[in-house]
Amino acid sequence: MSGFAFDLTATDGAARTGIISTPRGQIRTPAFMPVGTAATVKAMLPGSVRETGADILLGNTYHLMLRPGAERIARLGGLHRFMNWDGPILTDSGGFQVMSLAGLRKLTEAGVTFASHIDGSRHLLSPETSMEIQRLLGSDIVMAFDECPALPATEDAVAASMRLSMRWAQRSRDAFGDRPGHALFGIMQGGVSPDLRAESAAALTAIGFDGYAIGGLAVGEGQEAMLGVLDYAPGLLPQDKPRYLMGVGKPDDIVGAVQRGVDMMDCVLPSRSGRTGQAWTRRGQVNLRNARHADDPRPLDKDCGCPACRGYSRAYLHHVVRAGEMIAGMLLTWHNLHYYQQLMAGLRAAIAAGRLGDFADDFHALRAEGDIAPI
Amino acid sequence: MSGFAFDLTATDGAARTGIISTPRGQIRTPAFMPVGTAATVKAMLPGSVRETGADILLGNTYHLMLRPGAERIARLGGLHRFMNWDGPILTDSGGFQVMSLAGLRKLTEAGVTFASHIDGSRHLLSPETSMEIQRLLGSDIVMAFDECPALPATEDAVAASMRLSMRWAQRSRDAFGDRPGHALFGIMQGGVSPDLRAESAAALTAIGFDGYAIGGLAVGEGQEAMLGVLDYAPGLLPQDKPRYLMGVGKPDDIVGAVQRGVDMMDCVLPSRSGRTGQAWTRRGQVNLRNARHADDPRPLDKDCGCPACRGYSRAYLHHVVRAGEMIAGMLLTWHNLHYYQQLMAGLRAAIAAGRLGDFADDFHALRAEGDIAPI
Repeated sequence: MSGFAFDLTATDGAARTGIISTPRGQIRTPAFMPVGTAATVKAMLPGSVRETGADILLGNTYHLMLRPGAERIARLGGLHRFMNWDGPILTDSGGFQVMSLAGLRKLTEAGVTFASHIDGSRHLLSPETSMEIQRLLGSDIVMAFDECPALPATEDAVAASMRLSMRWAQRSRDAFGDRPGHALFGIMQGGVSPDLRAESAAALTAIGFDGYAIGGLAVGEGQEAMLGVLDYAPGLLPQDKPRYLMGVGKPDDIVGAVQRGVDMMDCVLPSRSGRTGQAWTRRGQVNLRNARHADDPRPLDKDCGCPACRGYSRAYLHHVVRAGEMIAGMLLTWHNLHYYQQLMAGLRAAIAAGRLGDFADDFHALRAEGDIAPI
Repeated sequence: MSGFAFDLTATDGAARTGIISTPRGQIRTPAFMPVGTAATVKAMLPGSVRETGADILLGNTYHLMLRPGAERIARLGGLHRFMNWDGPILTDSGGFQVMSLAGLRKLTEAGVTFASHIDGSRHLLSPETSMEIQRLLGSDIVMAFDECPALPATEDAVAASMRLSMRWAQRSRDAFGDRPGHALFGIMQGGVSPDLRAESAAALTAIGFDGYAIGGLAVGEGQEAMLGVLDYAPGLLPQDKPRYLMGVGKPDDIVGAVQRGVDMMDCVLPSRSGRTGQAWTRRGQVNLRNARHADDPRPLDKDCGCPACRGYSRAYLHHVVRAGEMIAGMLLTWHNLHYYQQLMAGLRAAIAAGRLGDFADDFHALRAEGDIAPI
């Protein structure tokens, strides 16, 4: 028997909160998963990622298969031991990233052949090879191999792509087999078409997965279109399985997605922003590179408990950003991941208390005030 | 009354161990001071630097006066608060670094005028301005402003430079004044000439300082010439004051310097090496970029207690070095600083036990075995 127990403990409108129980620990939902692309959440030690409140990390099959290689990671005891993270890990299928290699890849019914961005070597990713690579990595939550069409695309192109992904979903399910203690998630496609989304959901549900991702969003369609799909797409999926919105997002995307019934999300944004001097706070985005911070003795957020806010002034953060010091990326990544996890904790508590609407109102009101708190 | 109590608790030959007591905490000697050039020990959080066992950091006047500026740091509460390090800080005078700006600076009896490497703005460093900048920074141990001649140099040039530095030492002493809770160290010059070193030591001692640095070494003269000077130079200085060897060095330089009576050292080597994939261990230097580590499941040093050695394989460190991930610099800097502080702790314990000769023999024997321990 594959899959994990998913206990929904409360709902508030379409929103849900609960716990996914895995052999490597519990995942509190709604959950935000920091991205550890190349076996590291950039600028963070794993213990620090855990301290921010993360229950689960995401790893990238595409990057890891090329460097250091899935067989090598397997020989070294698997991805958890390799990167020193003992909690659950979800790996993507490699499909999304390999599709982004425009001009360097060839798509057929069998899968995708592509050239490595590192050394030009040729590789095949298919439902079968993706399942094998994710098995070698030791992933706890394995993603089915799918295709995500580049936008803009005609509805015909989106439909053809979605149906290919559904055939690949069946092949992924077959190749995955029965792996106790591991879960396989299918990925819904269908762009912004309710009919195609419904067809995709029905196909996936007929195959049967341990969880269901909503794919093909956060690819440039804009927040309004994304939330438009989320108004109905989660409801097309089984109530008793986790729903994972891939690659999302900004804090307000996350609040909107949770309000619409999403249980899991991942995004590089908090870590990537942290390495470019950008901070996310309860009051919105703050660019620490801006000269207005140069003499500001106040912390980024006086009510934040992260090391950056407890130990340093905006003036210091500005200085180390300008000087290109590594500590800038370290502190701001920590802050951003801490803020994201605090946001998730707040969402979970609000759903449990039946107060998600008030929580969302407060969230938007504080951001509208601007990034500097009144003194 | 300026200066700190320096209690020598044991000697072994020329070597000494003791404690410098400052209002911000004790400095166990022999001490290694990590370098926090721009108000950060690169790739480390201050709490992690403390965990390695460091009692005191070094800050660079030249870098800090240009960015973010000494007046700004003073307005923000001083360097300690700014960089979130509550232990003692020693600042250099800026003299050494400004002298390195060949072609961009002009030396007169008054001081050195130079152009900022950041924005080209003109600045004057003199004994008086250096004392003022170090006061604004809030430095615990202030260094006199000196000149260090570029090598190779004639004995006449070294003599003239040393005598200028001695006149500047007097001006530094006068400008420093009486600052309870802060110490001023003079800097001996004189190159590799015993006569000039003796003249410099006599001049400094006549002025009277709270500690004495041995300058003008570790500037390309080679280890043999450096240790040759250290065979006699520490003995020219007062027995009851700390002796600080500036800019040293590799682990074997440190052992040799401590054997010859040096109490304090600083060097960018452990942190800089860590950012280029180089590790320092009890068995010598290890280049993690080397392909022979790609499949090695062993830690860098199985007996090391640092996070890099407790949590990761050589294969992982190799991977993140090759992938250019920040965690490579973070883990290897931590390891290197940890190793350096363990070396200092070992030296202190050996001196206290009267076993420094045995300690040095073991140190050299283990390095001779090579960087991989027998399995």
